[in-house]
Amino acid sequence: MSSDAAPVIDLPCPIGRAAELIGDRWTLLILRQATLGVTRFDEFRAALGIADNILSSRLARLVENGLLAKVPYRDERRTRHEYRLTQAGAGTFPVLSALAAWGTEHTRPARGTEPMRVIHAACGNDMPAAGFCEHCGRVAGRDEVRWLRPWNSPDPRPLAEPVA
Amino acid sequence: MSSDAAPVIDLPCPIGRAAELIGDRWTLLILRQATLGVTRFDEFRAALGIADNILSSRLARLVENGLLAKVPYRDERRTRHEYRLTQAGAGTFPVLSALAAWGTEHTRPARGTEPMRVIHAACGNDMPAAGFCEHCGRVAGRDEVRWLRPWNSPDPRPLAEPVA
Repeated sequence: MSSDAAPVIDLPCPIGRAAELIGDRWTLLILRQATLGVTRFDEFRAALGIADNILSSRLARLVENGLLAKVPYRDERRTRHEYRLTQAGAGTFPVLSALAAWGTEHTRPARGTEPMRVIHAACGNDMPAAGFCEHCGRVAGRDEVRWLRPWNSPDPRPLAEPVA
Repeated sequence: MSSDAAPVIDLPCPIGRAAELIGDRWTLLILRQATLGVTRFDEFRAALGIADNILSSRLARLVENGLLAKVPYRDERRTRHEYRLTQAGAGTFPVLSALAAWGTEHTRPARGTEPMRVIHAACGNDMPAAGFCEHCGRVAGRDEVRWLRPWNSPDPRPLAEPVA
């Protein structure tokens, strides 16, 4: 079950509580980029083409609700902050994976492109069910999953690891 | 892959396309209610406590994008319309199921309640991975899945069947 640090929301339904926190287009796209390893404000902005104030407010809400951790780092001149997935943030992977499967099956891109694939690196098979490898008959560990996004890169990418 | 009737969205990423169509709190809650068998405007309004104009616009968008079908029915006095899940709408079940699992694990209700369960009726076990029964080692058919929402009813409920 949920930890004591998990945000309290006055709804009995867990779908309702999840929709309250992550049922938002920009929030889902930020979580996708974080899962791909993006951590810095400028990188999120460049990848998403999102306005600064919208990105700031979404990141702040994700930190407040415990999906991202704001972690200091030192660049050449001063201390800055980056945004790293927490366990709760990394736990949105099955939601993103289910969205990927639904989007692949029930929408079409304007320009032809090879579809995104969610691959179980342990066996090399695609994972059509969110989080579960049908070929191996078990839940795939996060470190065994690769996202292949052919319009970005021909190489499958591991998912970002959450901070402890 | 997607059918010719699937909406075209100018984004290569299927997560982006899905977030564009269903990455919205009210939209997800409407899809949850439709999955529970709700079909009529007044029932959606009563279940969600949503304003008429917001409900109208979300339903219209779901119809426009092919997730709900607007179907005429005859009540005592006149012809009305109800909103039925299409295959694309019913196909959001793994997304809702993943949201339920995430919400159960990473948020807390304000008042104690037994958690929601997604049950594979064929074997009686819970399905922690969206759409997949770990006990049976296979994807569960929609007609084999039950949602148990103890704060609403002690009885597991089947999911609404899509229109043909």
